Amino acid sequence: MQLDTLISEIRKKQSFLCIGLDVDLAKVPTHLLDRDDPIFEFNKAIIDATNHLAVAYKPNTAFYEAYGLKGWKSLAKTVNYLNENHPEIFTIADAKRGDIGNTSAMYANAFLKELNFDSITVAPYMGKDSVEPFLAVENKHTILLGLTSNEGAYDFQTKMLGDKELYKQVLKTSLSWEHSERLMYVVGATKAEYLAEIRNIIPDSFLLVPGVGAQGGSLEEVCKYGMNDTVGLLVNSSRGIIYASQGIDYAEAAARAAKKLQNEMQRILSRHGHKN
Amino acid sequence: MQLDTLISEIRKKQSFLCIGLDVDLAKVPTHLLDRDDPIFEFNKAIIDATNHLAVAYKPNTAFYEAYGLKGWKSLAKTVNYLNENHPEIFTIADAKRGDIGNTSAMYANAFLKELNFDSITVAPYMGKDSVEPFLAVENKHTILLGLTSNEGAYDFQTKMLGDKELYKQVLKTSLSWEHSERLMYVVGATKAEYLAEIRNIIPDSFLLVPGVGAQGGSLEEVCKYGMNDTVGLLVNSSRGIIYASQGIDYAEAAARAAKKLQNEMQRILSRHGHKN
Repeated sequence: MQLDTLISEIRKKQSFLCIGLDVDLAKVPTHLLDRDDPIFEFNKAIIDATNHLAVAYKPNTAFYEAYGLKGWKSLAKTVNYLNENHPEIFTIADAKRGDIGNTSAMYANAFLKELNFDSITVAPYMGKDSVEPFLAVENKHTILLGLTSNEGAYDFQTKMLGDKELYKQVLKTSLSWEHSERLMYVVGATKAEYLAEIRNIIPDSFLLVPGVGAQGGSLEEVCKYGMNDTVGLLVNSSRGIIYASQGIDYAEAAARAAKKLQNEMQRILSRHGHKN
Repeated sequence: MQLDTLISEIRKKQSFLCIGLDVDLAKVPTHLLDRDDPIFEFNKAIIDATNHLAVAYKPNTAFYEAYGLKGWKSLAKTVNYLNENHPEIFTIADAKRGDIGNTSAMYANAFLKELNFDSITVAPYMGKDSVEPFLAVENKHTILLGLTSNEGAYDFQTKMLGDKELYKQVLKTSLSWEHSERLMYVVGATKAEYLAEIRNIIPDSFLLVPGVGAQGGSLEEVCKYGMNDTVGLLVNSSRGIIYASQGIDYAEAAARAAKKLQNEMQRILSRHGHKN
């Protein structure tokens, strides 16, 4: 997908909401468990109820791999359903992959070509040649881990590496990689106070921001420091939306939770001059 | 698997060879392509021909995910075949995963419980709470990326983070994590000169060492600086063994290539006083 499509969807829907499809069968309504593919049925109902409110969906691959073959099939059906019915929606494989060059090329093939996601999250620890095979895929996007939403981010990411924090070195160094224009970055909503400095290094890039909701991050704060001329934000909510109800009304409850976030986003967009 | 089993296998076989099962269908003998599951058939023949020479097998998950559902099935069949026929052999899911806590727990479940690998490789960028869910699994091992074999290792890993290089901070910090006795570490053979200092930080841990062979690392150098009282090394070769021949004799050629490495290992073990 071209970035222009994503930006125009954000304007049109007045939303920069990404919905995390992290499906745990222990948490889905029990009536779904008799179905042939309960994970896909769950996702399909969530997508049908929320696609007018969200511009992106992000299945985390861990939740699918945990169910082995069946889970992989549900993942493929979910991204196919999105690509066929909502080609304007941005799809993210939250896979956090990264390996030596020839191996990263296999992952890029798996997620960006075979499964045909628009983007994939990638870990930076192994450096340039572990990321460039993802960046080499045309019309796709690589979302590099910058500053993550969890407590463990303080173990290494925020420590000084040379003259700046490791996560800032990652952001800065990545700009020199081939096809860096295809990069986006993960920055946790729980670290909103870091966003102003992050925007000094990567003013124009899209940021994928997890951690609003269950993890405690603030949407207001994220937008205050992170929003740019093209909005430049995809704010993710997973559990807060998909498990808004664990009853038979889960899809309607998800839509209500998504609508609440979208309303808040619309107010913020309007205040920042991003009216439709 | 208990570490004692691995150590006794190393003594018995006079080998610390790990064979990387990174199967690319473009490189397997063409007569296999008509089979129902060519990847598994290829692996089975390699395992049958080399299991007396190797103490560990390491499928890299990228190569399986690249074939989608079919690939995942081949991966499951491969680890099942090893567990059923060679329970004394150490299995490694080379997956390089790592995510926030509840998500890492899903990956741990997928690889260490469902697929029942003895171990998994994990990336350290997200810190303590991204790794501990793997360490929580009893009788299993977490192989943390330390200093990787690729060029990109110099982008961040070897840069100073506070008073020591990032990879050394990773090694040192990981020792304070819960169940750190279940940790092993990836150290590339191409960085053998770093092994002496690495052994100062983690004298007792097992190291998984890729990069001998196709990537140019030296077995002699790795052993000189990396071997400890329990040997403490698993040296991996992938392409140099499994593609030793791309003809119908591929399994025999793989056995010859493995035997050559095992002979070299036996000589080194003997010199270091690790006789059978």
